[in-house]
Parts: sequence; C-alpha cells; structure tokens
Amino acid sequence: MEQMNRQVLLVSRPEGWVKEENFRIVDAPMPEPGEGEVLVRNRWLSLDPYMRGRMNEGRSYAKPQELNEVMIGGTAGEVLKSRHPEFAPGDAVVGYLGWQKYGVAAAGALRKVDVRWAPLSAYLGVLGMPGITAWYGLRMICAPKAGETVVVTAAAGAVGSVVGQLAKIAGCRALGVAGGAQKCAYVVDNLGLDACLDYRSGNFAQELKAAAPQGIDCLFENVGGEIFDTLLTRMNAFSRIALCGLISQYNSAPYPMKNIGSVLVNRIKMQGFIVSEHLDLWPQAIKELAEHYLAGRLKYRETVAQGLDAAPGAFIGLLKGANLGKQLVQLT
Amino acid sequence: MEQMNRQVLLVSRPEGWVKEENFRIVDAPMPEPGEGEVLVRNRWLSLDPYMRGRMNEGRSYAKPQELNEVMIGGTAGEVLKSRHPEFAPGDAVVGYLGWQKYGVAAAGALRKVDVRWAPLSAYLGVLGMPGITAWYGLRMICAPKAGETVVVTAAAGAVGSVVGQLAKIAGCRALGVAGGAQKCAYVVDNLGLDACLDYRSGNFAQELKAAAPQGIDCLFENVGGEIFDTLLTRMNAFSRIALCGLISQYNSAPYPMKNIGSVLVNRIKMQGFIVSEHLDLWPQAIKELAEHYLAGRLKYRETVAQGLDAAPGAFIGLLKGANLGKQLVQLT
Repeated sequence: MEQMNRQVLLVSRPEGWVKEENFRIVDAPMPEPGEGEVLVRNRWLSLDPYMRGRMNEGRSYAKPQELNEVMIGGTAGEVLKSRHPEFAPGDAVVGYLGWQKYGVAAAGALRKVDVRWAPLSAYLGVLGMPGITAWYGLRMICAPKAGETVVVTAAAGAVGSVVGQLAKIAGCRALGVAGGAQKCAYVVDNLGLDACLDYRSGNFAQELKAAAPQGIDCLFENVGGEIFDTLLTRMNAFSRIALCGLISQYNSAPYPMKNIGSVLVNRIKMQGFIVSEHLDLWPQAIKELAEHYLAGRLKYRETVAQGLDAAPGAFIGLLKGANLGKQLVQLT
Repeated sequence: MEQMNRQVLLVSRPEGWVKEENFRIVDAPMPEPGEGEVLVRNRWLSLDPYMRGRMNEGRSYAKPQELNEVMIGGTAGEVLKSRHPEFAPGDAVVGYLGWQKYGVAAAGALRKVDVRWAPLSAYLGVLGMPGITAWYGLRMICAPKAGETVVVTAAAGAVGSVVGQLAKIAGCRALGVAGGAQKCAYVVDNLGLDACLDYRSGNFAQELKAAAPQGIDCLFENVGGEIFDTLLTRMNAFSRIALCGLISQYNSAPYPMKNIGSVLVNRIKMQGFIVSEHLDLWPQAIKELAEHYLAGRLKYRETVAQGLDAAPGAFIGLLKGANLGKQLVQLT
C-alpha cells in the first residue's frame, strides 16, 4: 500500500467560472480508521453540478465546502480496512469520501453495492444519486401519466438521461433539450426519446412549438436561464415543474425570467428538491432503477477522466457541458 | 319595473392600462327568463383583478371576454322572476351576471344566500369568491403551521385581508405588504396582523429583513414584480408560495425575476391556482369563513362606487390600488 494519500483541496472560492487555480493537489498522510470506521480506496469520483453551489460562501441548502479541505463528493471504491463488523476488506462501497485516493468514513455513511449486477461506477450514476434524483423528481413531483408530454433539460447528462428513459417507460412523449447535435443524436438514437432540441440552434422557441404541439405537462428542469423561460411559455394547464438544477447560472448572474406568470395562468406546481433529503425513498428508487437496468430498459454513458489530478479540469468541463452522460474520474 | 336594462360593454381591448374608452354604456331591452331560468335585479357588482386578464385576447385560463358583450363579473341581487322551482321572487342570490342592472341566469348558476347572517355584499367578499380564494390558497397550498411566518401581498385587498386574518387565526406570525401608510395602518390596527410593510417606502428589502427575522414559511402572492422577487430572497427551506395573482404586471410588461433560484435552493413549492376550479371545496370554505365571521374573527371593509356608470372608473382604480378592502359597485 502507498504511504501517502493524494487529495484535491479547494483553496479559494471561484468568482464566476471555476478555475484550476481554485484547487490544490497535495499528498497527505494515509488515514487510519478509528473504532466503527472503515478505510476505503476510492476507485471512482462522481462529479456533479451541485458541487458548484457548495464552493460558494452564500446561503444555500448545505454548508459550504470549507477552504483548504478535501473537495466533497460521492465516491465508489473498495474497503481496505474495517473496524466495523458489517464491512470487510474487499467490499465494494459507495460513500461521500471526496476527491482523494483514500478515505475514512463511519460505517453508517457507506453503502455496500454488488458489482455482480452492475459495474461499480454505475452506482454513482444510473443506480446512484443521479438516477435517484431523476426518479424522485419525475415520480414524486411531476407524476406524469401515460400520453403526457415530458420535457427534460440537460437530457444527455447523468440525471437527464435517466429522466427521459423513465418518462418513456411511463408511456409519455419524452422530449430532451441538450447542447449540440452529438448529444441530441445520443438522446434520440440511444436513449430512445421522441425528440431532442439543440438549444444552441438559435431557433429554440419555434422548434419547441413544433416538437411539443400539445404543450408540456411535465418539465424536469436542470439548466435554468433563457431556455427555461421559453419552456414556461409552453406549459399546459395543471402541469408540473420539478426544479432540480439551474446549471446555466451557477457561474454567472441569474437570467431575468419574464414568464413566471405562466405558473399562475396555467396553475403550475413548481417545486425545488434535493434528493438527499428523501433518503426514505432511496430503497424504492434503487429497486425500480435496478429492475429497469437489469431488463435493459435503462442505458447510460460515462465520460471518464483519468487520475485524481484530472478532477479539477473534468469538473470545469462538466460545468460547461463537455460531458456526455455521467462525468467520472477513475483513480488508478 | 323599468323597461330598459343598463349595461356596460367591453368595446375594445386595453393596451396596457385600462381606459374608460374601452367600455360603452348602453340601454338594452329587459331580458326575459326562459324555462329553468331566473331574472335577477343586481344590487352589487363585484370588481376583481382577474377581470383584467379576461380583457386580453391572449392564451389564459379562461376564454376572453367577448367584445361588445356585457362585462363579465360576479353579482349579488334579488330574484324578480323565476321559472325554476328552487327560486322565488325576493330571494337573495349571487351569480355571474356581469356589469348590468338586470340579468338572466340558469338556476344552476345562482347561489341563494341568507341576508340574516351577513349583508348581501359580504357574499361577494369575505363570504364569497375572494374569501374562498384566500381560504383555498392558504389552507390547500401554504398549509401553515402555528408559529410559522406568513406573508401576504395586497394585504388590504379583498383576498389579502382574509388571508392575513386566517393566518392569525391559525396561530401564525402574519405580515402584510400594502401600498401606503393608510392601508398598512388598517392591516395592523383593524385586521390585527403583526406588521405591514409599505412597498412604496423605498427601503423594502431591509424592512422585510427586520420584520421577518425568521424568514418566510408561506407567501400568499397577489402582486408579483419586484416585491415578489425580493420576497423570494427571504423564503425558508420547504416554504410554500400560493400564487394567486400578479396584479402589478397585468397592465405592463412582466418584471424580470432574478431570484427564481430560491425555489431550488430552498426547496420551495410554488403553485398557481384558480379558485373556481375547486368548487368541491367551496361548501367547506364558506362554512369556515362564516363561522369566523359570525364569531367576529373576520373583519372586512368595502370601497363602494355608486351606480352602474361608475363601474369602469372603479375598476381602473382597483387596478391602481385605489381601493381599501373589497371594491364594489352599488346599483340603485
């Protein structure tokens, strides 16, 4: 075993776009598990848009990431040492050990996963937090009926790709919104959505009208900004908006929304949510996602950066939409 | 009985602010009730902000008011002739007979009211559609618990004044927002709310922070615009917004909202509603409102314009916030 633990620290808070210089890579001493704790070797880091919010000091739903501490984040790896009876060396686990090669966690903060059913990395994506996020917002907030029209933004991303496929499974007309022809082709050809709109086309409003002639019953919103404002104009009476993310404005001033009146006129229910506040539903969500996955109904792609040192650059790319599917860092 | 029926017609659609010239006052022949219909002499016209939306041609929740037809609207009056067994001359009724002295309606479109319990006009306010609107949004969307902070905008109006009093009855801290010192004094001194913020003070954001130190758990929004955008910045985690009206932008371009991100960050549920779509709950609402009213817990004020010809001017005043409490037109 190596004697040092390589880590990525946040050393300054970004103004606007995140830069590599906001991070520092260091080698720290190997951690040792205390009583009831487990030492894990991370194999995969999950990179997710919510992390951008944690880098700010402002009022948000979680306490901010501390400066000069290891960047927070979901991880998948294997147990090296255990001082808890429920874990043994070699167990595959997911947790929130952050951007480092090794980490120690209380046993209760780790979840054992079975790599005979799915690759370890899938437990950070389609069978993990992003998949459950998609499931929760679609099922619990949108609750679409068969035949309704569901729109999902960032449709080629880790959450959006699951939303679109779950909407199809539920018998809905599913439209994706994504940036660029390659992502849109993936959304339609591989994920099986009915259509995908490239928001960079310059003609979004008209294309939306053509693609959603019956209007929108459910919007799963990950992006925000001008596209969200345009989508609001096509919402149906009694439609629902699951507000999951606003990635377009995590690095800039908020877009001034003109169409909030649609919430009134169309009696829309719009609800923000954070999936980690609904842990009671995770077992049900994971069970359903696993059934769909094992039956071949739920596909996914990954964009993989190699090595811990690549994490900052990959995260910056994620915020700019460089990834297709789930953005991961593979640790070797 | 007079032989002519005086009416106010909408003859052109307003651009921006409503003007008197959008209306025409005419004398039409007296209507005659057909089989199953009732002839009513209107004593009170209800003037309500929602009417402004009906004057537009655009897509909205209801079909627009037709040009050269009698202006739609709620009315209270007495039965003159009945061709339905459930109604007899002299019965006090409320309905939607519009801006005219006499009207004919199908029996099913009228509701008998009891003027021994409350003045006839109260059935257009605290015991009618505005009161039920307040009850529905507060109870069914906000559902505040005792001790929570409720904010209501247009707090001195027909809907807002009931919202604030119901919030106090529910054991909440209730804050009103209104335009001008006179309305704010009424909200605190007469309606019994804990505080009222004058949005014209020029210092709204800071005053809000001082008046709602624990943040806002429930917002009953009637106005929209910059004040709504500012209120969004003070919403608590898991707070609720009942979106009832956006009167500030019925006559102008929508205000560009910058703080929709609060819906995500604070996991807010925001829901638009139209009370006439929840008729199943009206009996329960009316029963509760009547109990509070009869027990002296629910007070109201009226601003009364005299005579049918005054209706257009009174409606324009309503849109500009000239009224305190329920805006009515009394017909003689």
